[in-house]
Amino acid sequence: MNLLQRLSFNQMTADPWSLDQTVRNCSRIGIPFIGAWRHKLGADATKASAMIRDQGLRISSLCRGGWFSAPTIEERRKRVADNRVAIEEAALLGAPVLVIVSGPANGQTLDDARATVLDGLLEVLPDAEKAGVVLGIEPLHPMYAAERSVVVTLKQATDIVDQLSSLAAGVVVDAFHVWWDPEVFRQIERASGRIVGFHVSDWPVPLPGILMGRAMMGDGVIELRNLRRAVDAAGYNGPIEVEIFNEEIWKSADYGLLELIERRFVENV
Amino acid sequence: MNLLQRLSFNQMTADPWSLDQTVRNCSRIGIPFIGAWRHKLGADATKASAMIRDQGLRISSLCRGGWFSAPTIEERRKRVADNRVAIEEAALLGAPVLVIVSGPANGQTLDDARATVLDGLLEVLPDAEKAGVVLGIEPLHPMYAAERSVVVTLKQATDIVDQLSSLAAGVVVDAFHVWWDPEVFRQIERASGRIVGFHVSDWPVPLPGILMGRAMMGDGVIELRNLRRAVDAAGYNGPIEVEIFNEEIWKSADYGLLELIERRFVENV
Repeated sequence: MNLLQRLSFNQMTADPWSLDQTVRNCSRIGIPFIGAWRHKLGADATKASAMIRDQGLRISSLCRGGWFSAPTIEERRKRVADNRVAIEEAALLGAPVLVIVSGPANGQTLDDARATVLDGLLEVLPDAEKAGVVLGIEPLHPMYAAERSVVVTLKQATDIVDQLSSLAAGVVVDAFHVWWDPEVFRQIERASGRIVGFHVSDWPVPLPGILMGRAMMGDGVIELRNLRRAVDAAGYNGPIEVEIFNEEIWKSADYGLLELIERRFVENV
Repeated sequence: MNLLQRLSFNQMTADPWSLDQTVRNCSRIGIPFIGAWRHKLGADATKASAMIRDQGLRISSLCRGGWFSAPTIEERRKRVADNRVAIEEAALLGAPVLVIVSGPANGQTLDDARATVLDGLLEVLPDAEKAGVVLGIEPLHPMYAAERSVVVTLKQATDIVDQLSSLAAGVVVDAFHVWWDPEVFRQIERASGRIVGFHVSDWPVPLPGILMGRAMMGDGVIELRNLRRAVDAAGYNGPIEVEIFNEEIWKSADYGLLELIERRFVENV
C-alpha cells in the first residue's frame, strides 16, 4: 500500500486555514484524511461532516477530549460532561478516534491527578462504547507534565488502556512525544493491537520553544521511519497524522505546504 | 540530623559569583557544601581545593564528566581523555562524585549513542575506581535528549549502573529531571544504595524556557519533600545540592539569595 494513502493532515499544522480551506486543499492534492480539532469545526458538526465527505475526505481523529484532572468535584463533572459532548461530535463526524489529552495536575499531587484521569475515563467509557468511538489516550512529552498532561509515557498510557479493558480505548503514538524514551520500541510492541493513531512531526535542534517548537519531518532528529515501522509491526495500519505546531509554518502556509508535507512524508516516514 | 547540614550550594545557582565569592558567602552563612563546576575552578584545582577547605567547606560533587556520545572514534578518544582529567580533578578537590552528563546523540541513532555512553563509562571506570571517585550518572529531563543527554530516565541510569557493577558508579537524582516520571518512586527505591547525589530546584508553571527555566524551591510544582523522603528511604544521606539555572536569580544574586535558599530548603525539601 502506498504510504500516502495513510496521510492525514492535522488542521493545526495550518492553523490560519478555515476548515473549508483545509478540506479543499487536501482534496485537491489528494490527501485522504484530516485530523480535526473541535474548536475549528464551527457550531454545526453535522454540516462540517457533510462538507468533509462531499470533498471525498475522511476524518482520522477528533482532537480533543480529556483534561480530566480538575481539582474540584464540580469542575470534574464539567469535564466529564464536555467529554460526552466530544464523543457525540466524534460520532457525528465519523471520526473513529477521540484523542484524549489527560490534563495537568492542577494543584493536585501527580498520583491524585493520575487517579482522576483514570476515573474520568472510566466514567465516559460506556458513552464511547455506545457511540462506536475509540478514546485514544495520547501520552504527551514529559515537558508538558505540569501544564497539559500527567500521562507522559507510552507505558503509562498502555497501562491505562489495560485497566480500561475495552475496545473503545487505545493509545495514540505521537513521535514528538515519545521518541526520546529508551523503552519506546518495547512499549510500541507491547501496545500491539491497541494503537489507534500515529502522529508525526520532528524535533529540531535546538528546539526553539516548548509549545511551538515542532518541525517538518526531516528537519529534526526523530527516527520517524523506525517508529513508523515499529507501529506498523504492532498491527497499526490506519491514518498517519502530520501534526506540526510551528508559527513559521503557519505564517507561510499555502498549497505548497501540502506538497512539501507529501514529499517529506514519503522521504522520512 | 538538621537538614541544613546536608545543604550544598551549586555554583551555577549564582553564576556571576567567582569561586572565591561563592565559598566566602557559603562559609559566612554556614552552608557546609558546594557543588563545583570545572569551568569555574580556575587553572589550579589544588589551589581551589585548599581555598575551599580553608573556609571550612567541602565539595559535594564536581560537574561534569560524560558527553561520551561523539560521532567519531577520534572525538570519542578525546572525550574519554577529558573524563580522565575530570576524575583527577575530582580526586584533587576531594569531590566524592563526578557528575556524568552523557551527551546527545550527535547524529547517531539513539541506540548507537546510548551504546557509546556505556562504552565510554566502561573505559574510564577503572580510573574512577583507582582515584576513589564515584561516577554519578545523572539522567536529564527528556526535553534535553536531543541536545544534552541520551540518558533520560532514572530507570535507564540505574540500568547502566547495574551494567557497570562497581562501587565507583552510582546515580544522581535531580528533582527537576525526574519528577514527571510515573515510575520515579519505584525507581528511587530500586536505586537504593546506589544514589550518590540529590539535586533540587523547582519547575515553575508556565516554564519560561528550556535551559534557564528552573525556579527556586517552592516556586513550582515538584513534590520535593516526597522525593527527598524517598531518596532518604533509599539510604541516601549525603549532601543535597541546590542547582537552579535562572537568569533572574543570576541578575540579583547577593548574600540574600543564600538566606532565601536556606529558608526555602527547610520549608520545601
